[in-house]
Amino acid sequence: MLLAISKKEILERQEKFYGILQEKQIDCAVLFSVTDIFYLTGFHFHPTERPVGFFIDPNKQTHLFVPALEHEHAEEFAHVNFVHSYPEYPGLRHPMEYFKDELNQAGFEGKTVGYDSIGYGSSMGYRGPAVSEFLSAKDFVSIKWIVEEMRVVKSPAEVELIKESCRWGNLAHRLLQKYSKPGFSEIEITSKASSEATMAMIETLGPDYKPHGSTAYALFRGQVGEMSAFPHAVTQNLLLKKGDTLVTGAAADVWGYHSELERTMFVQEANSEQEKYFKIMYEAQEIAFKSIRPGVPCSTVEQEVQKYFKEAGVENLVHHHTGHSIGLLGHEAPFFDLGDETIMQPGMVFTVEPGIYIRGLGGFRHSDTVLVTEDGMEMLTYYPRDFASMICY
Amino acid sequence: MLLAISKKEILERQEKFYGILQEKQIDCAVLFSVTDIFYLTGFHFHPTERPVGFFIDPNKQTHLFVPALEHEHAEEFAHVNFVHSYPEYPGLRHPMEYFKDELNQAGFEGKTVGYDSIGYGSSMGYRGPAVSEFLSAKDFVSIKWIVEEMRVVKSPAEVELIKESCRWGNLAHRLLQKYSKPGFSEIEITSKASSEATMAMIETLGPDYKPHGSTAYALFRGQVGEMSAFPHAVTQNLLLKKGDTLVTGAAADVWGYHSELERTMFVQEANSEQEKYFKIMYEAQEIAFKSIRPGVPCSTVEQEVQKYFKEAGVENLVHHHTGHSIGLLGHEAPFFDLGDETIMQPGMVFTVEPGIYIRGLGGFRHSDTVLVTEDGMEMLTYYPRDFASMICY
Repeated sequence: MLLAISKKEILERQEKFYGILQEKQIDCAVLFSVTDIFYLTGFHFHPTERPVGFFIDPNKQTHLFVPALEHEHAEEFAHVNFVHSYPEYPGLRHPMEYFKDELNQAGFEGKTVGYDSIGYGSSMGYRGPAVSEFLSAKDFVSIKWIVEEMRVVKSPAEVELIKESCRWGNLAHRLLQKYSKPGFSEIEITSKASSEATMAMIETLGPDYKPHGSTAYALFRGQVGEMSAFPHAVTQNLLLKKGDTLVTGAAADVWGYHSELERTMFVQEANSEQEKYFKIMYEAQEIAFKSIRPGVPCSTVEQEVQKYFKEAGVENLVHHHTGHSIGLLGHEAPFFDLGDETIMQPGMVFTVEPGIYIRGLGGFRHSDTVLVTEDGMEMLTYYPRDFASMICY
Repeated sequence: MLLAISKKEILERQEKFYGILQEKQIDCAVLFSVTDIFYLTGFHFHPTERPVGFFIDPNKQTHLFVPALEHEHAEEFAHVNFVHSYPEYPGLRHPMEYFKDELNQAGFEGKTVGYDSIGYGSSMGYRGPAVSEFLSAKDFVSIKWIVEEMRVVKSPAEVELIKESCRWGNLAHRLLQKYSKPGFSEIEITSKASSEATMAMIETLGPDYKPHGSTAYALFRGQVGEMSAFPHAVTQNLLLKKGDTLVTGAAADVWGYHSELERTMFVQEANSEQEKYFKIMYEAQEIAFKSIRPGVPCSTVEQEVQKYFKEAGVENLVHHHTGHSIGLLGHEAPFFDLGDETIMQPGMVFTVEPGIYIRGLGGFRHSDTVLVTEDGMEMLTYYPRDFASMICY
């Protein structure tokens, strides 16, 4: 059972990253993205007002720059050659003064320096200078998308972690459906299902399981009854009523990897209107599945779905595209969207979630996580999708 | 019982914000910060690859710019004059094309435009131009800190929401302590305590309670036993053993407002080493409390604590400053830090959490949330702090 990315794979990522820098004639690089730092080092942390940065120097040595309070944590978990730290933010001497020293020490002066973001940014009260203000480089080159693009095609190990995530999302969702009864609050049902699924998950996986994110959960995000017509609502603490349409979500993070499972369900019964829109949504998802294969642009999937929605006369009830990539973040590029011409490749992982929303009645959206394979796709989520299975008794 | 900020108060915030713009001779402004948009409009949303922006035009009209899937949600919950939307990201026409049209329509051309961030930014696969690339303004002026600074001194209503948060954090922590027994996993204890406290919270507060964040929770973040010496670790799924030092955290978000309650506890027993460091930490927190009052710089609190730590001979065991502000974000400026000369004012809310960390033994940190008052401070958290109360039986 795979529960983490190996040190070997992390080091291969660094190797590949450095190779791309060399191709672009970039000598060294600085990264501040939390997700990209985790991807390249295996160091998972909670970003705050205190800057954290990763850099790779002209001699291919990797460095992590952290606040003192993360120093030992980084020494223990980060796959880098060096860990450096500064006392505190704001501190008597600004963290970027220490960062400047480290970059100069590592030979950044006079070099072509790649960066993802020109300075550390945080909404948590951080203020500080851009790297370009204190480093005398030959040139600064934005490399913002390099690691993001490395993350698009998943390795076999990454797919295994996403599958493990699907497994526990499935259990959490099963419990959510079981507890979805009239008179219960969305928070109560969410809490009970999530807690029980999490217990089962940790008993099964044991101490090697590191969430690096959320443990198992299932929820409604306020999409209960009429409110389910708001596709991305936030938890409203609503009580379920008989006949309500529910739009759910369930997953578990496994070493930082996400999956997505969403279902349209009905409390005890559904009327003919609900059944009608459910079936249109169901068919749209089938059409999307059939259009996913390597070599085809992402936009094709959306075109096929939109064509069907138009035929079904519901194009005005659609408020979002068919899906997005998923991995270390819940939403990643590329997208199943009219404007995304990215060509699908084996190893890409997407959500498939065409939806329709009717004010006063509800929202209709399933979401499944799928892997693009050599000749088509593989479903990674496996919860029932059919109408009959979606009634909560 | 107050569970939300009123529309009146939201509109007063907008009035104040506009007044500051006028003082600075700025005609209109664009904001992309999720937290600041929530503060100014009451619209809570999950940021994704799809841009969301707020703008106030030269005629003082307020606008929210959202993706189609948030349009009705925004109409329902945002206190603004206008809601505009675009079909999707990336879409056949980029969202910033629509944004340009709206800004021009609202009279931004040729004006002095304030901005917090010059374009929408998201790690979730978004790419797009800066506002300065498509808008013909007279001038662009950074107003990045205006709303952040408005958020520093809390209103009576904001303090009430933070107090409500403390109440449920207290319950969650009580349950965490009750369930902290040898042989149980940190995740299991966290899950049980959080779930039960959440149930009690929603039964008590009823449907008017909107978390806009997390419901009640209590956790360890991997700070169990020797690992508690890592001050900001992440959940490690560790099993508790007799004699372990635990460093906890508990809170509940109430309409987006946070509080912080952290305790150093011991599983069934503590040895004399643990007691010694606990008492030093306890005394440091007492010293911090005594130095908090209006008119005094934030740095004074840290100086007093560091002076004491030096006297106690543990200055090399300190890895972070004494505290931070808290409100809509878990960490906000200003800080109890040597480098922060901000003068304390009534209405500021801080955490007080001096800590010491001993590799191989554990971490020692309580955190309490306090309000600066006219003549000193008021404790908002009220969980027991003394050594005897910290043993988990």
